Amino acid sequence: MKYLEDIGSRARKAATALNILGQLRKNEGLKLVSEALIENKDYILRENETDINKAKENGMKESLIDRLSLNTERIEAMSKGLLDIIGLADPVGEVISMKQRPNGLMIGEKRVPLGVVGIIYESRPNVTADAFGLCFKTGNAVILRGGSDAIHTNIAIVTIIRKALKEAGIAEDAIQLIENTDREVATEMMRLNKYIDVLIPRGGAGLIRSVVENSTVPVIETGTGNCHVYVDEYADFDMALNIIDNAKTQRLGVCNACESLVVHSKIGDNFIPLVYERLNAKQVVIRGDERAKGICDKIEPATEEDYGMEYLDKIISLKVVDSIEEAIEHINYYSTKHSESIITNDYNHAMKFHNEIDAAAVYVNASTRFTDGGEFGFGAEIGISTQKLHARGPMGLLALTTTKYIIFGNGQIRE
Amino acid sequence: MKYLEDIGSRARKAATALNILGQLRKNEGLKLVSEALIENKDYILRENETDINKAKENGMKESLIDRLSLNTERIEAMSKGLLDIIGLADPVGEVISMKQRPNGLMIGEKRVPLGVVGIIYESRPNVTADAFGLCFKTGNAVILRGGSDAIHTNIAIVTIIRKALKEAGIAEDAIQLIENTDREVATEMMRLNKYIDVLIPRGGAGLIRSVVENSTVPVIETGTGNCHVYVDEYADFDMALNIIDNAKTQRLGVCNACESLVVHSKIGDNFIPLVYERLNAKQVVIRGDERAKGICDKIEPATEEDYGMEYLDKIISLKVVDSIEEAIEHINYYSTKHSESIITNDYNHAMKFHNEIDAAAVYVNASTRFTDGGEFGFGAEIGISTQKLHARGPMGLLALTTTKYIIFGNGQIRE
Repeated sequence: MKYLEDIGSRARKAATALNILGQLRKNEGLKLVSEALIENKDYILRENETDINKAKENGMKESLIDRLSLNTERIEAMSKGLLDIIGLADPVGEVISMKQRPNGLMIGEKRVPLGVVGIIYESRPNVTADAFGLCFKTGNAVILRGGSDAIHTNIAIVTIIRKALKEAGIAEDAIQLIENTDREVATEMMRLNKYIDVLIPRGGAGLIRSVVENSTVPVIETGTGNCHVYVDEYADFDMALNIIDNAKTQRLGVCNACESLVVHSKIGDNFIPLVYERLNAKQVVIRGDERAKGICDKIEPATEEDYGMEYLDKIISLKVVDSIEEAIEHINYYSTKHSESIITNDYNHAMKFHNEIDAAAVYVNASTRFTDGGEFGFGAEIGISTQKLHARGPMGLLALTTTKYIIFGNGQIRE
Repeated sequence: MKYLEDIGSRARKAATALNILGQLRKNEGLKLVSEALIENKDYILRENETDINKAKENGMKESLIDRLSLNTERIEAMSKGLLDIIGLADPVGEVISMKQRPNGLMIGEKRVPLGVVGIIYESRPNVTADAFGLCFKTGNAVILRGGSDAIHTNIAIVTIIRKALKEAGIAEDAIQLIENTDREVATEMMRLNKYIDVLIPRGGAGLIRSVVENSTVPVIETGTGNCHVYVDEYADFDMALNIIDNAKTQRLGVCNACESLVVHSKIGDNFIPLVYERLNAKQVVIRGDERAKGICDKIEPATEEDYGMEYLDKIISLKVVDSIEEAIEHINYYSTKHSESIITNDYNHAMKFHNEIDAAAVYVNASTRFTDGGEFGFGAEIGISTQKLHARGPMGLLALTTTKYIIFGNGQIRE
């Protein structure tokens, strides 16, 4: 498709320029873009209103309209997000190691930008400025493909960013938006291997599955989370209740929220009524197995599917196990390998859980809600990887770089 | 497909066991397998003969039959390869960093096995033992899908390895071979996301393209190489000739061989006749642009396609440029981002080439033939990645690991 080839080829050219732009110029660009968003906030709000009116006409759910909506405060937050990125250390250019080989070759490994990053996302317009900021800081050109619901808002934001870059004498194609939101254009984008180095989908499970299934461009799979809290026989009950409450209810619709409880049978009689009481007070329904229901008859029955569900709602599953081995087996079978936590005071159980659970983040005595770039101290986050290649867990600036070997010789040839 | 589901589910189970096997037991397993290959060499040779006879009947080319053929020496090399892997440091278990957050959480990043690695390869039976050794050392279960030409040999090698593992009390499903070599089984394997964490194709450009296009499992793309040597206006001619000779002719059929020359116009008149003479003495044909032909009329004409070709043969393309900028632009456009070299005595040109060439390995004054796990000091190599995600360039043991975050808390919840 000529339309996408043009976008890809312009992005590749911009990436070449960004690769040698340097930290000072990149930070200068971020500052100008940050200011331009504030200066042009009326234009953004006007275009956002067009999207919102259309969404209301189409009968969009209130919670989704909220995600789509911007106001002065949210635009200021977008703008401040870019200023925050200026303050982060730029990983590009660092030589991680440099060693001399017996033949005298000096072989170094240097961090460099990925090149061109594609982002496919849904209706949150704040992703537009966020993703640009992180990609630009790491010297990558970004091609954005947002949802049709937010198209007017996205066009406004991208127009402002490109104008600010151009005025700063920086390649405006550092950011491009695919304005044609037809599904087939997105599918074609997923096969643009010649121009796109990495594709990062950000959105619900359906979007992510579609990208994984259709893309020939390498994908970083982000985020569905069926996160477990396992309450061991040696758990502190108060700590367990506080952590479960926090992990389940502090924010319902996020990938690091707890969706599944696992409780050791030895403490079931005492603990399960307490956790029922705590969660019921917040209108959270527990769906448990027969043993859990035997202890507390207000627990609803769980089906096999419940153990694999990411509810993102006021529901949690509960499974009773007879040993830490059974707990680990259950979790490794049903988890999406995002974040899992054990509550225990037993040293060996804590270490066993850390060693044997296969997930991006494995916790002892803490809430799963901490799996987040900000909470991990990365300053910003482009998403949470649930795959094992390249980056796992919260992805900060480093995940937007690759390495290349730089070799210094003086005439070496291979014997 | 039930057949593959079974293989996948057994591999997943073996991976769980390998994850906690420990370095001593893994090295013990490698030693026993290494010995078993020698003890059973007659069985392997017998099965190999069956494959060779069939290949001859089918009229296979001599060079391909050579790749397929084993003899005592080659089996001893396979066996020794496993012993060498014992000597390498095991990256698994290393905690790369551990930091405390303001809320007291200790967050560490630990190297762990990928899990289940799939390898799709062609007719080299040595890959079977090699790939097993590297995956096993890093605690990964491996599922192999070799070519139909080598099927009897592969079955023999895998049978011996599994038997040795079983006798050592180690999960024999650490290695499994897909014995059904139908193309549709391979395609199905590429979509086994539930059981396979990473797929590594090893073979020709056609195989790699097919895996990239059909796989939903994350792929590490390995190796086609259209590698360039750029002879700068400030090059030492003798050094340039030696490096070009080595990079082109030391071994023709490898991905780090030089396929394309780029020469600065200022030295064209003097250098091009010399390089013609040097390569012609080894029967290497040069296909050049008009300017090169104007200097040396024995140079054949190059078409646009020639600049993008990986010949793997006694042919090389030649392009004359007027500046280092033009050289870099030409190389970045036509290269497969594998290995590129500049020959120069100019400091600024050397640094510019290092900074602006987008490739896995960028050389100053050395042969591209060094892009290799052994030459880089990794001790062994599972392939050479030409993509930017996860691993770039020669992949040693580290490329077969991922990381997980291990978090030590004492009741932290998110505010």
